[in-house]
Amino acid sequence: MTLKVAVLPTSNTYLDNALQSAGAVVTALDDAQALVWTGSDQTGFPQDLPSTIEWVQLKSAGVRPWIESGRIDSQRTWTSAVGAYSADVAEHAVALLLGCLRQFALHARAGSWLKEQTWGTVRSLRGRTVAIVGAGSIGRSMIPLLTAHGATVIAINRSGREVDGAVRTVTSRELDEALAAADDAILAGASTDETQHLIGAAQLAALGADPRDGSPGVLVNIARGDLVDTAALTDALRRGIIGGAGLDVFDPEPLPSQDPLWGMDNVLITPHVANPRNRMLENFACLVEENLRRFASGTTLKAEIDLNRSY
Amino acid sequence: MTLKVAVLPTSNTYLDNALQSAGAVVTALDDAQALVWTGSDQTGFPQDLPSTIEWVQLKSAGVRPWIESGRIDSQRTWTSAVGAYSADVAEHAVALLLGCLRQFALHARAGSWLKEQTWGTVRSLRGRTVAIVGAGSIGRSMIPLLTAHGATVIAINRSGREVDGAVRTVTSRELDEALAAADDAILAGASTDETQHLIGAAQLAALGADPRDGSPGVLVNIARGDLVDTAALTDALRRGIIGGAGLDVFDPEPLPSQDPLWGMDNVLITPHVANPRNRMLENFACLVEENLRRFASGTTLKAEIDLNRSY
Repeated sequence: MTLKVAVLPTSNTYLDNALQSAGAVVTALDDAQALVWTGSDQTGFPQDLPSTIEWVQLKSAGVRPWIESGRIDSQRTWTSAVGAYSADVAEHAVALLLGCLRQFALHARAGSWLKEQTWGTVRSLRGRTVAIVGAGSIGRSMIPLLTAHGATVIAINRSGREVDGAVRTVTSRELDEALAAADDAILAGASTDETQHLIGAAQLAALGADPRDGSPGVLVNIARGDLVDTAALTDALRRGIIGGAGLDVFDPEPLPSQDPLWGMDNVLITPHVANPRNRMLENFACLVEENLRRFASGTTLKAEIDLNRSY
Repeated sequence: MTLKVAVLPTSNTYLDNALQSAGAVVTALDDAQALVWTGSDQTGFPQDLPSTIEWVQLKSAGVRPWIESGRIDSQRTWTSAVGAYSADVAEHAVALLLGCLRQFALHARAGSWLKEQTWGTVRSLRGRTVAIVGAGSIGRSMIPLLTAHGATVIAINRSGREVDGAVRTVTSRELDEALAAADDAILAGASTDETQHLIGAAQLAALGADPRDGSPGVLVNIARGDLVDTAALTDALRRGIIGGAGLDVFDPEPLPSQDPLWGMDNVLITPHVANPRNRMLENFACLVEENLRRFASGTTLKAEIDLNRSY
């Protein structure tokens, strides 16, 4: 029997090809067994899903707003795109870390030859220790990159369960000690009630303590802006408590144009583009194809949403 | 017998420790068997070396000016620092490539939220093919990094002798075809008579042909400025023939303040700092220690300069 799938609000070439490869056909919502929702949020999402929809595939990796709105019911299977974009986002995180260590923001803005000022302060990632805060799919994807660059990884997760490729894994209760032991930190955790402002003044002070070569470390955030107390971060950057920050996410977004972070030469900012659009479409279609095959054969889908965890 | 070494014009803690570890003592030039020259060029280099100096260790990886000045004689062994700085320079090259693909220069200069403009044009290194032009010590050091990032490497060297980790290696005669087959290119070759302006308009056109996703590739240069015809590069960047450039070296240096490259948002410039100073001192001391041990035991030194090759 051919699988009937609604693709809303719009499809694209990548998805069309994925459905075709998986032997599925696009139908109207009332006639479909599954819904692939290509919107990035809930705007326009069907108010009442037909009971015939057995599975909904969402495009977001983080689905906290979906869960909090009560939209996700237990009458059918819901899947997110967690994991699908991890490699591209992990790449951006490592690029931001390298860019901060190599002082790209300062150099890009100077418009003049700063060798006298920067040759002594540009740093190499080789030999540094990097704390990855939140060792989910994105965090784990960074480890082979950082290791190839000659860095050592400390992983921090809720359970403390050992993460492959990290020299050690600690639980979030030991966050401050791990930050103190690391040179730099990358935030890769989900946004939950427990992780709001996980990084405040105390954590930044721990990260900046005992700087290697007199240059305190770098904080990178490619996860969610609300993991960081922005006021504390701005203060730590101003006072040189940490050496720099590479930020793709903010609280709120877009980062307001008058925010002082824009003017800091030790801050490398990108506007929430760690997951480039073209790559996102391609990676999402790849996940959809895999899940269509699994759905057709009755096996467990990838990235099923667990309502008992808020992400 | 204790090895007597002159360290000129100045020493540093790293070198002092290296000499001590190798069991050598610092003496005046007239009393020494070996000279470690810590100057970055020939200014102040002793006019007439005592005939008792059996070995001179230079701090530069590229020694073309030393050879061309006739300074390097055949009365003793001369060693360069080729290889000692490769890993740090390779890291900078990969950082520049990532920074160009992720549009760090544009974002750093904008001072405002450019997501609408850049989410569709930011690119990932994963899945791209990178040509490494000059697969010496620095070029080879990049391969594990690029591979970890999910890129595929084409190596270009003089002999065409297969380079580990590259999917294929071609000779410099096939440079244009290799650039056409690649998405991006990193210059890592030595500056010699043959490599002057190796990259001109034709090579940039080849690199920019058949762009992936409509976005032509990136050129990175961490080798020597004179490998590139700067006027042709500037023109190719202006006309969008290539998508961007990450440049640490220029011809001449410093890059003049009125140079148009400074004003281009698709150009990421660093002022010849790929080999950070602290790391250089540390890595050089490590090489000196190794060569002191080799000299004492009568084995072949690392990085002996071959006057038959001009680098």
